[in-house]
Amino acid sequence: MRAVIAREPGGPEVLTVTETDAPVAGPGEVVIDVVATAVNKADTLQRMGFYPPPPGESDILGLECSGRIASLGEGVEGFTVGQEVCALLASGGYAEQVRVPAGQVMPVPEGIDLVSAAALPEVACTVWSNVFMLAGLQPGERFLVHGGAGGIGTFAIQLATALSARVFTTAGSEEKLRVCRDLGADVALNYRDEDFVEVLKAAGGADVILDNMGAKYLGRNVDALATQGRLVVIGMQGGTKGELDLGTLLRKRAAVLATSLRARPTEEKAAICASVVEHVWPLVADGSIKPVIHTVLTLERAGEAHTLVDESTHIGKVLLTTLPALP
Amino acid sequence: MRAVIAREPGGPEVLTVTETDAPVAGPGEVVIDVVATAVNKADTLQRMGFYPPPPGESDILGLECSGRIASLGEGVEGFTVGQEVCALLASGGYAEQVRVPAGQVMPVPEGIDLVSAAALPEVACTVWSNVFMLAGLQPGERFLVHGGAGGIGTFAIQLATALSARVFTTAGSEEKLRVCRDLGADVALNYRDEDFVEVLKAAGGADVILDNMGAKYLGRNVDALATQGRLVVIGMQGGTKGELDLGTLLRKRAAVLATSLRARPTEEKAAICASVVEHVWPLVADGSIKPVIHTVLTLERAGEAHTLVDESTHIGKVLLTTLPALP
Repeated sequence: MRAVIAREPGGPEVLTVTETDAPVAGPGEVVIDVVATAVNKADTLQRMGFYPPPPGESDILGLECSGRIASLGEGVEGFTVGQEVCALLASGGYAEQVRVPAGQVMPVPEGIDLVSAAALPEVACTVWSNVFMLAGLQPGERFLVHGGAGGIGTFAIQLATALSARVFTTAGSEEKLRVCRDLGADVALNYRDEDFVEVLKAAGGADVILDNMGAKYLGRNVDALATQGRLVVIGMQGGTKGELDLGTLLRKRAAVLATSLRARPTEEKAAICASVVEHVWPLVADGSIKPVIHTVLTLERAGEAHTLVDESTHIGKVLLTTLPALP
Repeated sequence: MRAVIAREPGGPEVLTVTETDAPVAGPGEVVIDVVATAVNKADTLQRMGFYPPPPGESDILGLECSGRIASLGEGVEGFTVGQEVCALLASGGYAEQVRVPAGQVMPVPEGIDLVSAAALPEVACTVWSNVFMLAGLQPGERFLVHGGAGGIGTFAIQLATALSARVFTTAGSEEKLRVCRDLGADVALNYRDEDFVEVLKAAGGADVILDNMGAKYLGRNVDALATQGRLVVIGMQGGTKGELDLGTLLRKRAAVLATSLRARPTEEKAAICASVVEHVWPLVADGSIKPVIHTVLTLERAGEAHTLVDESTHIGKVLLTTLPALP
């Protein structure tokens, strides 16, 4: 089968389509005929050599996919060959076939086409597990998500809005800010011109912050928290080591949490996927949440797709498809 | 009535017994005839001018007491005048009488004398609310408490042991370490000779850490955490601003939480007290947890009591009593 790997650590040009053996479903696993996959920031880090796949996982890139079940491993129940699904992967999505534990395979939400479904697993599982399962965002609470126009951001704005939180977000261009507002953000700030700390403080502070900047925003995020606020760090695009003012944290009785989805044990990923199907898919099916897709390119154009994500000019998700051409 | 205040910010010599008006119970409050109170680290900080009482609270020192109900304010039910109780206070314990919201008043656990009961409210509410209600320590998990021979430490070791955690602690003398082991600590380390990070790492990491050192231990505490570990900071004796390695926190999917009891709203304190009476008092009544009391001095000797706590040579709690002399 065709699959995309990074020949060596480097820029988008190191991505190469190779021929490799098709995967075989082990006990509890399924193999999916991939129709589409998506480019995540983590993929670009892996390409540069900074984020190796967990031990035992394929070095084929790709953390999510949509497609049809090709085969079922021993003991797998609840799926049928040919069924349209999407899945959360530890790696291997940039390929014609991928092998995945059955617990990480989800039905395609009603009303979503099979290509677009590849935009959902990572953002839905990340936002739901962190903002709702971990940080416990409640209706009426103030929620701040940085980078509102990205894959995570566009999904988080819609999900938090659907669940009656008051949504604040940041982005770096007027076009991105407009998209954030259209998706439901109550307040969308250009971080180049405005200080999110002041805006949040004036509003009473953020009850939950979802952050991908890490160290660079640590102090300001803590300053922006409300009493009993929760800062959830899921990325470190602004560095890993930052100064934490425990005095401020203690006065606010607040918390700093940091998590990642990829390294979690299979059973935790399965629990997250089950919770997403139960709580989030109905909101996708009824139109409250729409996948926001910047573009869909063929697998051969993975390098171009990575360039887009590296340059961060995209809005929503960048998808790759194994289909030969798009209608 | 007699009460102890700090004449001005300073050393133990600034503590003075004054005559002041007795308190009157407002709606939802009770007045307690104080039999004993306890010296907390927070009192010594307040004496030095670093930790003022919350707005509207008395400037009389004292965050807990035991005694008998003297009068009931409007709408208070479930207590009777003369009943022996202990209470969590926002201030005012170093006095012959104190006024307190009824939700912060607890019965004296069975088998505990009334003077000794003054050793319990702060440590029981602090340890239970942080280690169990907030950080969710589970049976079989590894729990590290720094300063095992202090008031918090001696209580935390016993409570975590009673609830089947594996308990690690630190202290600064052989005598203190022996006490920690006698109270149930599985591993007691002299922090002058041994590195708690290495010991915890070798054991698989700490699932929950209760810390009063703040910035000084922040990096090492995070290093000592297990996957999904929770660091709860309740004091900042080692400074407020420290470097946090979000990369380590993210790899461990761990959390840094910081809280204090004193500034919480009355209804939260009441919920904590109710939970303590339900879950912790039975363990005191059956002898699983004993109050550890270093000494009991009269109210007039508050300065000596503060000197003991400042020098940190004590083991367990230092109490003050309004009784004229001890048997």
